[in-house]
Order: sequence, then structure tokens, then C-alpha cells
Amino acid sequence: MATNQGRAASAVPNWEAALLEQSLSRRVQAAGPAYWGAGATAAPPPIPPIALTGGVPDPESLPFDDLAEAARVVLEREGRPALQYGGPQGFLGLREWLAERVGQADGLLLGPENITITNGSAGALANICETFLDPGDVVMAEAPSYPGAMRTIRAQGARVEGVPVDAEGLRPEALAEAVEALSRGDARPKLLYTIPNFHNPTGATLSLERRRAVLEIARRHRLLIVEDDAYGEIRFEGERVPSFFALSGGDGVLRVGTFSKTLATGLRVGWVAAAQEATDFLVRMRFDMGTSPWIQRLVAEYVSRGLLDSHLPQVVDIYRRKRDTMVTALAEHCAPNVRWRLPSGGFFLWLEMDRRVQPSAIGGLRETAAEEGVAYVSGDTFFVDRSGNQFIRLAYSFVAEQEIEEAIRRLGRALKRADTGPRPGTSQSGPAR
Amino acid sequence: MATNQGRAASAVPNWEAALLEQSLSRRVQAAGPAYWGAGATAAPPPIPPIALTGGVPDPESLPFDDLAEAARVVLEREGRPALQYGGPQGFLGLREWLAERVGQADGLLLGPENITITNGSAGALANICETFLDPGDVVMAEAPSYPGAMRTIRAQGARVEGVPVDAEGLRPEALAEAVEALSRGDARPKLLYTIPNFHNPTGATLSLERRRAVLEIARRHRLLIVEDDAYGEIRFEGERVPSFFALSGGDGVLRVGTFSKTLATGLRVGWVAAAQEATDFLVRMRFDMGTSPWIQRLVAEYVSRGLLDSHLPQVVDIYRRKRDTMVTALAEHCAPNVRWRLPSGGFFLWLEMDRRVQPSAIGGLRETAAEEGVAYVSGDTFFVDRSGNQFIRLAYSFVAEQEIEEAIRRLGRALKRADTGPRPGTSQSGPAR
Repeated sequence: MATNQGRAASAVPNWEAALLEQSLSRRVQAAGPAYWGAGATAAPPPIPPIALTGGVPDPESLPFDDLAEAARVVLEREGRPALQYGGPQGFLGLREWLAERVGQADGLLLGPENITITNGSAGALANICETFLDPGDVVMAEAPSYPGAMRTIRAQGARVEGVPVDAEGLRPEALAEAVEALSRGDARPKLLYTIPNFHNPTGATLSLERRRAVLEIARRHRLLIVEDDAYGEIRFEGERVPSFFALSGGDGVLRVGTFSKTLATGLRVGWVAAAQEATDFLVRMRFDMGTSPWIQRLVAEYVSRGLLDSHLPQVVDIYRRKRDTMVTALAEHCAPNVRWRLPSGGFFLWLEMDRRVQPSAIGGLRETAAEEGVAYVSGDTFFVDRSGNQFIRLAYSFVAEQEIEEAIRRLGRALKRADTGPRPGTSQSGPAR
Repeated sequence: MATNQGRAASAVPNWEAALLEQSLSRRVQAAGPAYWGAGATAAPPPIPPIALTGGVPDPESLPFDDLAEAARVVLEREGRPALQYGGPQGFLGLREWLAERVGQADGLLLGPENITITNGSAGALANICETFLDPGDVVMAEAPSYPGAMRTIRAQGARVEGVPVDAEGLRPEALAEAVEALSRGDARPKLLYTIPNFHNPTGATLSLERRRAVLEIARRHRLLIVEDDAYGEIRFEGERVPSFFALSGGDGVLRVGTFSKTLATGLRVGWVAAAQEATDFLVRMRFDMGTSPWIQRLVAEYVSRGLLDSHLPQVVDIYRRKRDTMVTALAEHCAPNVRWRLPSGGFFLWLEMDRRVQPSAIGGLRETAAEEGVAYVSGDTFFVDRSGNQFIRLAYSFVAEQEIEEAIRRLGRALKRADTGPRPGTSQSGPAR
């Protein structure tokens, strides 16, 4: 009989083991356990933790009333198409708006034929991987990177090759070296998955110079670029750097965006911008008859009213304040043990810990943080080889601003308790350059 | 530059052809053109056709007000979880309701751990195929069957083997023969995809006796059963026949359901009921972070208020009337050329035409029907080998009741014009047994 973590036995027994085993696809076996919210602490926490875990928007800032109104208006005005199949490529009106928006940002003339609407950017990545990856293919990605994407890639039977980053993000020379080394073997890297703006988890933004260098490497090795720009619109300061999509004129680049970070993750509306023929192939790999046209139409209504344009600066202000509050608290409570680099946008701070701190080991930070009541995502989550034990990711986006200092104070206490070695005289602590 | 069917050239050129070609996955190449609404006529119709094409609900009957109210209430009461990630398995409350509902119908004790919420039943089928099919696998299915499912199966690199049906649906002996013949070769059939209730397109419902025989064959050959029950709740008369899921106690059976036909296709809410361990593997193959929890929660609100239970008998009445109207009109306007079997539920009438009528050939029914102003889905759409030219599928669900007679009158005229041969004295015309 089926039982699971204390649940009552279900009257539907599991299948005969041999039947299940011989029926599973190779892909589901490659996929491994479900990815669902990275890196909660293992044991139930002794006190309710303050969560610095999820890359999700500030819950107070979600535009409930405007979305409810858009949902109502759309159903009243265009109820039938909102409640019927909308097609695998998505609602034309939203694709037109996105073509205009992305086109303007990138200095390209896009049409609705260049856009596919997806179930969030996670759905976009799944769609892209299914369209372009075969078992045995090699995908280059920043190490560290977003674990949801890594899992999606690996579930195709493809292999992820991590490219080391520095404080400025992806290192073009490291990419070139890795690709060349692989190409000398029997593997041909097919695709680069990259998060160029406010990287998850490092927060780094790739410079224009590096983007040009990366694009040149991609061209030379016939590497597709999948550019995940989930966080690009959450910019606190500095100038927007042109996207790979813009720099390439769209050739060989798939640009992924989402309303999840700017509006709400629960809408599940993301998109891919790409050349038309590539888009046509993406649409071929959609078997879900498209996501809900009601949701797509209410998002179109919301953005067409200019509400995203007024919402964005408000939430950017919120995240900038939260980042600043967190950094101030880190300097006060954690500085001797950690360093970080100030992100100029996005949701995350990436902390490198002193080698004496053991964040992922039992008895290390993982345990003391749980005891002190603060939750983060440990660094190994973001590396396919599970290295990265000296890092943790803190999300400042979701936690209430007034809880940030307390969270970081708790983290500071946890760090001190996990600091098992003697303190050297020449500590490299404090903010990184 | 990219141009497409009269659209202005996009400033984003297509990729260099070799880059695209060498980058596409084998799966997207196997998938073929996008499936999007089967079988419109080829040329633009000379007069606006009455559409008997889509398997979609009566648009007048869509419960706009109740859904809008549920959307509002849910956002007011549980706005935060509605607008945040809800997880790949779906909203617990809706899974609990479905476990209760499906469990009651099937006489099984189900829990939320047995249910996965998907992007409609199309999303459910994609999820199942990804979890259980590898390239080279063989899937048995009724011939004819739902083309969306066939496409999803084939895009995994799997092969569909059609099993001939008779007026009562899937023939167990034909299934056994086909499976045994295949097993003598190097192929082991892995899965049976079947639509046992109000089959799409034939309308047939499989008897209890046949279900037992099919289940026995599946057991003997270790064939999983995927039971697509999209139409099961649209029953006009007769007793509900126990599902494969019920008959097997859940062992080796995945039961697919949806709110698309009972409520609205545009919600994109379907589900899979299965043993817990099988469900866990389905969830592993979800990379989309789940569909919108807002939609899932508003559906839960709608059904929990008992609104589905009051809506269902109303729409069943509508579809019964529409079926009867269509059958009466067929007897009057088409009987000399066609035969059909009265479906006891669902959305479709499956017409077998006299051999003299050429429904899919140029100059045959396809052309005359377009000229007369009536659209249907031609039979070859439902056969993987594109046979079935002597059949057409008529959907009575979507068309306005008052248009049905005119549609069938037009079809009758088109049939007469496409009837190119001499009429034999012993015509088998009129309703089939």
C-alpha cells in the first residue's frame, strides 16, 4: 500500500514495481526528484524561520485590485474567446504588445509572429529544451545557475557543462576554453543558457564587452544562446545593457521573459522572443493547446492600461530599499564572515563565506541557521556538481522589509556559531569590490 | 527576411538555415506541423461556413458570471497564494475535491496525492507521454482517435499502432491480435491510449464486458492504460460504465479528466488520477512550476459551491437537444448518403459516407461542403495512416441549436453534389444499428 511521509495509506495501491520500473521513460529517470522551491532546510525548523529563500515578488505589492478588475473586464468584454482555446502560440493581443515592448527595448522590429506565450519562463525553458535538445547534447551554463533550468536541461538527457564566473559574471575566456576542450572530444556544445541581467543566484550583470565576446564565441562554435531575462526589468541603478537578442539581431538567440517577477508568479505568463522560423518550431512542441487565454487577456488588459509601467517603478523602489536594508544589516551583523557584491537589480544577494564556515555540512551553517530561525538557499543547489558549499543565496524580494534586519541578525549569530576555525589576521571579509 | 502568409517582413531575420537545421531536436522533427484545431477546409470558404468542427462547449452556456465571481472572491480571500507559485502538482484544495469526486465515481478511496493538475487534458497527455515514452516505444490506440493525442505520442519518437474499432468501440480481439503480432517482432507495446466514453471521434462507449477483456489483455502484456475521459460527464442516457481505473483498482492505469468540456476549454484545467508513485513520477516531469493557482483556486471555488453540479445537467440537456436536432436533420437531408450511430453522450457524430462520396478528395465533399457553407473535420484527420476518407466528424456541441438544421441541409446538398457514382438499389443508408 502507498504511504508517504505520514499520510494515511491510499486505497489505490502503487503499481506492481516491475510494471512501473519497466514503463518509465529514460527522461523521467534523468530528471531526478521534482524541483519545487530550492533548498529548504532539511529538518523541520525549531522556530519559524524568516524565509530568504524564494525568488518571488513582495507579497504586499501584488496588484490584487488591478488584476481582479482586469479579469472582470476581460470576461465581460471578450468572455467567449477568454474561455475558449486560445491556441498554442498564445493570445495575439498580448503577443503584439510584447513584440512592441521587447522590440523597443532591443531596437528591433518584432511582430507577434516572433513571440510565443508560455507557462511562465519555466514553461518557456521546457519548450526550448524540447525543441532543441537531444539526449547526449551538451549545454553550457554559468556555474552557478538557476537550478530549475539545469533540471529541465538534464531531463532531456542533455549534459550541463558549468562555466566558472567571476564577480562580473560569465567569463568569455572560460567559456571559449570549455567549448574548445569539449569540441576536441566527441561532444559538440549546442546551446548556452545564460542569465545576463541580475543573475540568479549571483546578481551579476554581464557587461556589453563581455556580451560581445560571448556572442562571438557562440557564432564561432555555432552555439545557440538562450537568454533568460527574468529579472532584467528590476533595475535599481545604471544603464540597461543591450541583450544578446539585440546584439545578434535575433540570429541564433532565444530571449526568455516573464511577468512572474514584475507582476506575479501565480499568473504563469512568460514568453519567448525569437526569429519566426524558430518560433514556429517552438509552437510545434506545444502539446498543451496553450495556457489560459483568460489569464493572457487579463495581463494584456493590465499592461495596455499602462498599469505595468506605473507598477514597475514602485516595486523597483521596494526591492532597492530591501537590498539596501539587507546590505546594511549584513555589514553590521555578518561582515567578518562573508563577502558579497552589490547587485544593481534583481532579487538576490550571493554570499561567499569564509572557508571556516560550513554552510552545507551538518553541524555547519545549515543547522545553526535553522536553529536561529532564518532560511536561505545553500550554494550547492546552484551547481550541477554540487560544489559551491561556501556560498549561500539570500532573496530580499519576498521577506517583509521590517524583518530583514532581524533575519540578518539571526544569520550573523548562525555564522558565528558555525565559524569553527581560528580567525586569521588577514580576513578578506566585508563587501567585495 | 522572414515573411509569412502576407504578413509584413519582420526585421528579425530567420537564423542561418544550417544553424536551425543542426540545432533542432529529433523530437520536434518527429512532431510535424503544429496541431491547432483539426481540419478546417483548405481554401478560404466562399461563404461563411457554419462550423461543426470544434469539440468545444456551447458558447452561450459558459458560466461567465459564476467564474468571474469565483475569480474575484478567490483573489480577495486568498490573493497571495493565488498569485504565487502553486507547485507542479497543483492546488491542494482542488486535488482534494477531485480525489473525492473521482474516488466516489470509481468506488476508490483517493487522496490528493493521487491527483496532478495539468494544463487541460492536453497537458495531462503531454506529461504522461514524457514520463512513460521513449523513442521507439509502441502505443496502441483506437483507429480512429483524437489527433492531438496521436501527435503528442509521436513527438516522443514513439509509434502509434491503430486498433480497428466497430460500432461498439475498441475490439478486444483486434487489440490482442495486434499486440501479439507486434510482440512477435522486436517491438513491445508499452501503453494503450483509449477514450472509452463517448469516443472522439466515433462517439462509441465501450461496454463493461469489453473493458474487462481489454484490461485482461493489458495485464497479460504489461500494457499501461491511459484512459482519456474528457467527455464522460456529458451523458445523455444509460448507465455510467465503470472506468478502467475503477476496474483495475488503479493498477497500471492513468485516468485523465478535464474541466474543458464541462466548464470551459479556456480555463486549461485538467488532471491525471493515478497511483501515488506513478503520480510522483508525473510530477518529476513537470518543469513549468505548475499552472496558475489563481485559475485552479477559482475552479475549486466554483465546484465547491456546487455550481458544477447545477451546471452539468443544464449543459447535458443542451447537448442532448443538439444531438437530437442534428440526427433528425441528418435523417431528413443526408440519409441516402450516410450512416451513423447515435452517441449516448459527448460532442460528436461520426458519419460514414457511401463509397461514391469522396469527402477528402479534391472535387469531393471537402470542396462542395466549403461551397455550400458548412465545415466539419474530415475522417483522415483521426487515423495515423490518413485512411478514413469515408468518414467525417460533426461536432454538435458548439454550433447554435437554431443553425443545426441549416448546417445539415447544406451538408446534404454538398453530399448530393459530391455523390459522383450511380446509386445502387440496395443502399445501406440511414442510421446504423
